Amino acid sequence: MVSLKFFSLASSLCSSPSKTVKSSLDFELKKLGGCTKLTRNVNLEKLKNSYLFPEISRRELEHVAKYPNVRLISLGTGDTTEPIPKKITTDMSNFAHALSTVEGYRGYGLEQGDEALRKAIANTFYGHLHVKSNEVFVSDGAQSDISRLQVLLGSGVTIAVQDPTFPAYIDSSVIIGQTGYFHEATKKYQNVVYMPCGPTNSFFPDLAVTPRTDVIFFCSPNNPTGYVASKKQLHQLVDFAKTNGSIIIFDSAYAAFIEDGSPRSIYEIPGAREVAIEISSFSKFAGFTGVRLGWTIIPDELLYSNGFPIINDFHRIVTTSFNGASNIAQAGGLACLSSVGLKEIGSVINYYKENRKILMETLVSLGLTVYGGVNAPYLWVHFKGSKSWDVFAEILENTHIITVPGSGFGPGGEEYLRISGFGRRDDIVEASKRLQSFFTTRTKHFPLFSSPSNNN
Amino acid sequence: MVSLKFFSLASSLCSSPSKTVKSSLDFELKKLGGCTKLTRNVNLEKLKNSYLFPEISRRELEHVAKYPNVRLISLGTGDTTEPIPKKITTDMSNFAHALSTVEGYRGYGLEQGDEALRKAIANTFYGHLHVKSNEVFVSDGAQSDISRLQVLLGSGVTIAVQDPTFPAYIDSSVIIGQTGYFHEATKKYQNVVYMPCGPTNSFFPDLAVTPRTDVIFFCSPNNPTGYVASKKQLHQLVDFAKTNGSIIIFDSAYAAFIEDGSPRSIYEIPGAREVAIEISSFSKFAGFTGVRLGWTIIPDELLYSNGFPIINDFHRIVTTSFNGASNIAQAGGLACLSSVGLKEIGSVINYYKENRKILMETLVSLGLTVYGGVNAPYLWVHFKGSKSWDVFAEILENTHIITVPGSGFGPGGEEYLRISGFGRRDDIVEASKRLQSFFTTRTKHFPLFSSPSNNN
Repeated sequence: MVSLKFFSLASSLCSSPSKTVKSSLDFELKKLGGCTKLTRNVNLEKLKNSYLFPEISRRELEHVAKYPNVRLISLGTGDTTEPIPKKITTDMSNFAHALSTVEGYRGYGLEQGDEALRKAIANTFYGHLHVKSNEVFVSDGAQSDISRLQVLLGSGVTIAVQDPTFPAYIDSSVIIGQTGYFHEATKKYQNVVYMPCGPTNSFFPDLAVTPRTDVIFFCSPNNPTGYVASKKQLHQLVDFAKTNGSIIIFDSAYAAFIEDGSPRSIYEIPGAREVAIEISSFSKFAGFTGVRLGWTIIPDELLYSNGFPIINDFHRIVTTSFNGASNIAQAGGLACLSSVGLKEIGSVINYYKENRKILMETLVSLGLTVYGGVNAPYLWVHFKGSKSWDVFAEILENTHIITVPGSGFGPGGEEYLRISGFGRRDDIVEASKRLQSFFTTRTKHFPLFSSPSNNN
Repeated sequence: MVSLKFFSLASSLCSSPSKTVKSSLDFELKKLGGCTKLTRNVNLEKLKNSYLFPEISRRELEHVAKYPNVRLISLGTGDTTEPIPKKITTDMSNFAHALSTVEGYRGYGLEQGDEALRKAIANTFYGHLHVKSNEVFVSDGAQSDISRLQVLLGSGVTIAVQDPTFPAYIDSSVIIGQTGYFHEATKKYQNVVYMPCGPTNSFFPDLAVTPRTDVIFFCSPNNPTGYVASKKQLHQLVDFAKTNGSIIIFDSAYAAFIEDGSPRSIYEIPGAREVAIEISSFSKFAGFTGVRLGWTIIPDELLYSNGFPIINDFHRIVTTSFNGASNIAQAGGLACLSSVGLKEIGSVINYYKENRKILMETLVSLGLTVYGGVNAPYLWVHFKGSKSWDVFAEILENTHIITVPGSGFGPGGEEYLRISGFGRRDDIVEASKRLQSFFTTRTKHFPLFSSPSNNN
């Protein structure tokens, strides 16, 4: 890929083509043929740095190059590791095979997804909540639908996000033009409401001091903090949205990990159908991170200020900008929601729950301050007084474990690391040992990490 | 879905909530909970009617309801019908099966696609054209990437399109905010340059009178006209873009159907790497309309006016707004590009070529004026003096054959129908018979279709 070094060269040549430049540089640019007259999209100019996970991948590759013989363990990007249950892969495999037969061949499907799958999603996850199959839009994953929703919303709306939160909400908001510039001092984009969620407010925003926005992105169980909002809290959120005429975009991608009876869907809250969109995914639920399948719910009752139904516009966006999720993945989704599929998926989720329990016990035994990890696969570990990228780098260097620096999730994530319970059991056990050994030595000798007693 | 009738009710209630309304209407709105204060995206307000293909599907459903016992034949949406060759489905099937094993399980892949597939695409389609694998972005299909490119470009650019052309270019342009309102009299959006392509200019735009735009969407072989641009014409197009500092977004989705040696890639033209993006797809090439796989090429040399490489921004868009094509589909893509895969795909393409030949012979024998159909799967049939939706409706009513009204591809498509060579052979033969019978009777007795002699 063309380097940034070249960019500054090309930049100077393109913007002032008549200026005398060194012939070698001139030659470089000539070889490239010069610039077009296309002005770069100002929204892309505003975007800071790399997207979090590609940056982590880059650091991981660097580390592997430096230590080619170590066993690197990733507790990082939250990638699933366990095989997909056989019932599901068998159905996908059979569907793929049938595509080679006249009877089994299928071309274009409905852009919004196969009707049987839409019905199964409505029944399985929203059976008692009056979600209809026409309100279900099958996607190739929540990340794509977040961007499609931003295209629907356009540049004219204001948004609020939990701080910290999954970075795709803000990044897609910047790209579509809803925000101002990034402010280095605060680490925030202008024109975005960051709702602090930390230990002092039980990781739920203080709505009494939150300004009105058109849209509120809300992820529960939250990525990265691992906190789930209670029914009472979600009642407050829905009331807040109703009072303000806002819409909530509720991300329930980790709902399968909820253990304490907290709502798995925003539609468990009365009145939510008039104010909330829900996005969700088979990725963490069924190990479909590579297979790619998700869904979005837009209730019929959700209306713009002029009374026009938002579902009609999303239907238009989906049919224009998307051509449906892979039909093989959709066959897999349908298998997931069969009784056998659901039972087998339950076992895989329990495996990850056991992982996070092992990690939680290790980190707590070391005296670290750990949040989350009960209703979500993520642990949210506090390193008071430290920069999270520094802690990330130090842990990687010393234990060969990939984590995620909390600051990648917003300014409220500084001083934290997200540690993921997704992983093979032997990796989780090995990682626990390495962390134990490292922290036991580390906190004795260096001041970078505050001592456990300071955190409590 | 909430009806438009309800919309006008909700609209009046939401915008003037204090006004006295009939209690039954009030009850309806109360039941729905009222409107949010979210203003509808002005770009979506501008979008006219439904997207072409969903509208055709709607009419098809209506027709089936009216004639439940007829054998409906679709020569419409250009959907592939032939089974996918076994080598390819076997590899997908095996990949899906392996996902249930520890060794074969795969989670997140690179958002821009598996490296082996990117290399195979670069080698197979661009081996002699210096396209590097890092310049290949694997997608879930060209339609999704058209929208992702529009998100990259943003609302500040101007575009030109062939007229007629595939509607997704303009519709996605409206959605992202590049256009003005639709003008009913001209059937054109303001702020879009429509480049007429018809019999008088050999279906290639008259560049001498085409105003400069930032972006030129160019589809060759063209959907719907079936015309392919020659090497000489593409030279002119690249020169035109260079002179103007424009970029070309070249859609080569139908390249596999080219028979006469015309370029299958814009990069066959010297200098195109500095001015052109290419989008393409496995959909029509390998029958992947339902499996979903495509790709986009952004050369390193393609630069904004400030010298910044466009590939860097597209990389950022893809990693933020997309999480990669389904890994099962990607395994299928790799199988397509094996020597066995390519050979088997060639047979399927020959089957469709034979189909279009049968249709062409039938229509020409009826004296109809038929364009295209040599280097593309589509025939472009002229019905001088007729409205294309009327011809569509009349053919559907009398022959139970679905076609595509040319006006759905832009004002330059009025008076035309697109007839697709994708179909099962017995359907093609049966459709030919029905068309023969209908047109033989029809042109004798009714003036709606001008007689063949008037067309020539």
